[in-house]
Amino acid sequence: MIRREITGFSNPTVKFLRSLREKKHRKAAGKFLAEGLRLLTDARESGHIPEILVMAKGRDNHALLAALEADVVAAGGEVIETSDDILSKITGKDNPQAVAGVFAEFDTSLGALDRGKAKIWLVAQALRDPGNLGTMLRTGDAIGAGGLILLDDCADPFSVEAVRASMGAVFTQRVAQARWDEFEPWLRAGAGQLVAASLREAQPYRGAPYAAPCFVMVGNESRGLPEEYEMACDLRVTMPMKGRADSLNAAVAAAVLGYEVLASVG
Amino acid sequence: MIRREITGFSNPTVKFLRSLREKKHRKAAGKFLAEGLRLLTDARESGHIPEILVMAKGRDNHALLAALEADVVAAGGEVIETSDDILSKITGKDNPQAVAGVFAEFDTSLGALDRGKAKIWLVAQALRDPGNLGTMLRTGDAIGAGGLILLDDCADPFSVEAVRASMGAVFTQRVAQARWDEFEPWLRAGAGQLVAASLREAQPYRGAPYAAPCFVMVGNESRGLPEEYEMACDLRVTMPMKGRADSLNAAVAAAVLGYEVLASVG
Repeated sequence: MIRREITGFSNPTVKFLRSLREKKHRKAAGKFLAEGLRLLTDARESGHIPEILVMAKGRDNHALLAALEADVVAAGGEVIETSDDILSKITGKDNPQAVAGVFAEFDTSLGALDRGKAKIWLVAQALRDPGNLGTMLRTGDAIGAGGLILLDDCADPFSVEAVRASMGAVFTQRVAQARWDEFEPWLRAGAGQLVAASLREAQPYRGAPYAAPCFVMVGNESRGLPEEYEMACDLRVTMPMKGRADSLNAAVAAAVLGYEVLASVG
Repeated sequence: MIRREITGFSNPTVKFLRSLREKKHRKAAGKFLAEGLRLLTDARESGHIPEILVMAKGRDNHALLAALEADVVAAGGEVIETSDDILSKITGKDNPQAVAGVFAEFDTSLGALDRGKAKIWLVAQALRDPGNLGTMLRTGDAIGAGGLILLDDCADPFSVEAVRASMGAVFTQRVAQARWDEFEPWLRAGAGQLVAASLREAQPYRGAPYAAPCFVMVGNESRGLPEEYEMACDLRVTMPMKGRADSLNAAVAAAVLGYEVLASVG
């Protein structure tokens, strides 16, 4: 067991933890940061124990935190106590939660997905907002999806913002990252219906003939899906748009459509 | 017509425009800022012309911008040309869009709402995230809602983030702000069904007996709705939660429920 207290801002471990707020450092280390007892407890209950647990010295005692600490110790991880100030520096928040954890990034290769494990999968193309990405993971958990497939250049699912917005679903949902040129052959090599919210030759989303495993795809926040991707879909559906706007927020579109698919194939 | 060029960072108008990024200054002035040609065009098409229009000197010519400029001039507003650097300072963004506008804040009193104008109204309690707030406005536009009623201490609907996330819907949806103690008597003084997503004595959200005008209420991102508010509802409904989490993102919950209500009462 490694357990120690860090009091200096310039400590290399503090610098390392702080560096995980940036994507290039996450990729270099293959690690990511999750903050807050609730998130870490969700992780633990999903079988994910942090490699490093950082706790504020002046934290309140809490049974869940004690259980987490014991699991980290049992797994050979490191427990670090530090000041609120240093924790603020690590998390980049003025009022950090009293605990943060470092996890190894998960395997996000498409080949690691078992499509038969769920009736619904969410797919996002060029999603740029980490909050939208995390929200889609959270919605995926709610609708019993197997995970989220990120096509082309999306936000990083392991960013602090995405992890936070996922409300723990980053630990329960599978995440895969792929280019379209890799995804389409993979999809067509097995069972799977690709569905997109679209305005092109689309039918009403309610009561459309959804079939499991159903891959529900939404596009970039500004540009939507490329036409080629929409035309490759088995089903294009449209949600009513009663007002001036012609689109929904990407995470909202995924949720409205995802719940409709759940009602049909769930 | 007032038309001028501003070249100095310390110009009082630049300071005023910049100050509108902060709530206290927005409230003091009764004005708010909207950025980008798309948003300003949405505003214009909804009958809202900015009192001040700020444009980057090096902008591309654009017919929509010319039309906007003409409308501002016709309405006796002010047109300001300035540098990209100063526009960055005003908007707080490194790559500002080439145009921004200042609008008078709208009347957000509950008494100004005409509930008979729409079959659906969205209601949010203690919503803290301006992105969620803007997303709810955008969803409201899509489902043909009349507007968004903000209960208790919510994020400011006129913040730059909320306006941006609304994708123009802040100009088409009515916004009201009220305390619960004011809202409940107002609601009960006329027709209206209050519906909440809830886990308390709730029925499945699909096919529940929704009735117009239907007020769809969601709660704070962390705490949800106070029990008192839920129990005051005419209908409590629940969405399936197949995973570990027990709640959806607030804007997602409003959208899933809102679309279900639309299918029933639309």
